[in-house]
Amino acid sequence: MTKNRINKLLQKLSEDHTDSIFITSKANVYYFSNYYTDPHERLVAVYVNRHIDPVLILPTMEVEDAKNAGWEGDMIHYGDHENVWEKFLHYLESKNALPASLGLEFNDLTLERYKTLQSILPEAKIVDSQNTLAQLRVIKNEEELILLQEAAEFADYGIEIGKRSISEGAKELEIIAEIEYALKKKGIQEMSFSTTVLAGSKTASPHGTPGLDPIHKGDLVLFDLGVVHKGYCSDITRTFAFDSINDQQKEIYETVLKAEEAAIQAAQLGTAVGEVDRTARNIIKEAGYGDYFTHRIGHGLGIDVHEYPSMHQENNLALEVGMSFTIEPGIYLPKVGGVRIEDMIFMTKEGPKSLTAFPKELQVIKSK
Amino acid sequence: MTKNRINKLLQKLSEDHTDSIFITSKANVYYFSNYYTDPHERLVAVYVNRHIDPVLILPTMEVEDAKNAGWEGDMIHYGDHENVWEKFLHYLESKNALPASLGLEFNDLTLERYKTLQSILPEAKIVDSQNTLAQLRVIKNEEELILLQEAAEFADYGIEIGKRSISEGAKELEIIAEIEYALKKKGIQEMSFSTTVLAGSKTASPHGTPGLDPIHKGDLVLFDLGVVHKGYCSDITRTFAFDSINDQQKEIYETVLKAEEAAIQAAQLGTAVGEVDRTARNIIKEAGYGDYFTHRIGHGLGIDVHEYPSMHQENNLALEVGMSFTIEPGIYLPKVGGVRIEDMIFMTKEGPKSLTAFPKELQVIKSK
Repeated sequence: MTKNRINKLLQKLSEDHTDSIFITSKANVYYFSNYYTDPHERLVAVYVNRHIDPVLILPTMEVEDAKNAGWEGDMIHYGDHENVWEKFLHYLESKNALPASLGLEFNDLTLERYKTLQSILPEAKIVDSQNTLAQLRVIKNEEELILLQEAAEFADYGIEIGKRSISEGAKELEIIAEIEYALKKKGIQEMSFSTTVLAGSKTASPHGTPGLDPIHKGDLVLFDLGVVHKGYCSDITRTFAFDSINDQQKEIYETVLKAEEAAIQAAQLGTAVGEVDRTARNIIKEAGYGDYFTHRIGHGLGIDVHEYPSMHQENNLALEVGMSFTIEPGIYLPKVGGVRIEDMIFMTKEGPKSLTAFPKELQVIKSK
Repeated sequence: MTKNRINKLLQKLSEDHTDSIFITSKANVYYFSNYYTDPHERLVAVYVNRHIDPVLILPTMEVEDAKNAGWEGDMIHYGDHENVWEKFLHYLESKNALPASLGLEFNDLTLERYKTLQSILPEAKIVDSQNTLAQLRVIKNEEELILLQEAAEFADYGIEIGKRSISEGAKELEIIAEIEYALKKKGIQEMSFSTTVLAGSKTASPHGTPGLDPIHKGDLVLFDLGVVHKGYCSDITRTFAFDSINDQQKEIYETVLKAEEAAIQAAQLGTAVGEVDRTARNIIKEAGYGDYFTHRIGHGLGIDVHEYPSMHQENNLALEVGMSFTIEPGIYLPKVGGVRIEDMIFMTKEGPKSLTAFPKELQVIKSK
């Protein structure tokens, strides 16, 4: 699969008259090498040059891991005390392949690495390749759809475990422990982001931090979670009521649900992303909660849990077959509480398909 | 605490004749604002300018969270569809505080953000402030020592749980599930990196990926884990033998242990970092395993699990009171297996103090 991807990239580079591209983001390194790694501050990169074979740059201690992941091409590897940039330059010189132009991921590459690349390749024209790469990745194929679907099923399962763990006095972090325990037992190595369980008034923060806060009767309980499955991410949010629900909570819930379903319906082939956002936003505004929906309707997801496209109200990008993104409206009333409902949507020939399938009608969980 | 830190930073800026600094890394944002957040692709920044009060830049939906974390200063907040850079520029103009110079974290800031800052502040001289910030953070105070000590105790506990979970057929990911479950129950929200449990020949990879591989009699079992506790990280590695140990495994274990203890002893006040690495490396070389210790002796740790200084053999930095780092030699024999032993070291007036305390003599875990 990576050969095919590199060929498409080479074609794009040729069309753009770009000689080479230095790929550094974790997600794109995986996309083009099948090697999934979190290098922290160490450099891992895929270098694709139209005149030589692709090369993987990585720490010496990861060489075997990269081979096991299926990388069969050249590697430039380095110890922690060595200068990888000099090694890279010598490699290019030995291949007589100093590039006339160099594509970089402007949205990932640090300023320090940029300056270093400039200093070793002073003649190379630097171009921003983030859109080239985003456009290759934004359309997912059948194989990627299957992985996203499987990742979504693990997310549904996580919600099921979370729902079963709701009880009087249960603590947010305890419930997270239950969810992740169950998922790890099924072979999940990594969550796609820090699992969120929030109870009561803490649900009023879209990015709240779980703690040892216990669940009380009458609380809303919000779950936002996802897994990394074979390199692909899932993401789902569900909100439950515990024991009972008051009128305001119910009104918020029903408004968010209506907005979410309408936004999914709006997400047809050819529709602009902004229209999907505005569909939900208008429903929430009309219900009088416009000031309390403080974020975009969603985000693309695939190898990255947040990737291109950003699903915000000003985005005119038209939806196409193979795009994958979340729809996740929310209403957050400070000191009262909040509701968010989120699904993973995949654009098929027939229109939007929700990969997450956990029921979303209002559920009031009764005390055990 | 953050006021004190900002004052020290202002003093440093004044000494360096730098007008202002735009801080974007998650760790430094936390260090100077007490607001701990993972903004993914969204901008969160602390802007410190010698002529106006510090300002926190963040998504609108996180404003309440930042206040709850204790931020009392100005905030520039933005919705997902808004241009935060324009807002920042207008803010500076309204305060009549366009900076003559702008410090940036070259090792964190993306090229895209750099170009944007250049375009809105074309007159500002750009300077690299990564060392200024690293030098402020590298010396930890008593309060930070306490947090690191507590984080280390959670790491010890994680190893204890892992050790208890070793049994015939137990799978790597199952053991990770047990460890993280126990830690989350104690209030840990986040691990400091993806927990590693490796069994058998998989221990031969310093950065191997846990899976559903079961433990067999005669296996080495390696644990590498840490927690985030009140914003501070821990990191520990222990390796056990299951049921029995052969002569080669034993030789590797004893060599690594000897190297680790010698490196800790070498880490005295005033000693160069490189000397600490070379002490361990020489012991491993003399035992005939020099080619199989493929990484540096360790890394600084604090708010980041890998931070300044990098503990590699060519680093001449002298150790000082308040520095915090890991010591973690390893030997990795391809297809056979590996051993790593890692402790968190804090430099006190009396010399190196190990914050992690789990026993490290060879333990052969017997079948239950």
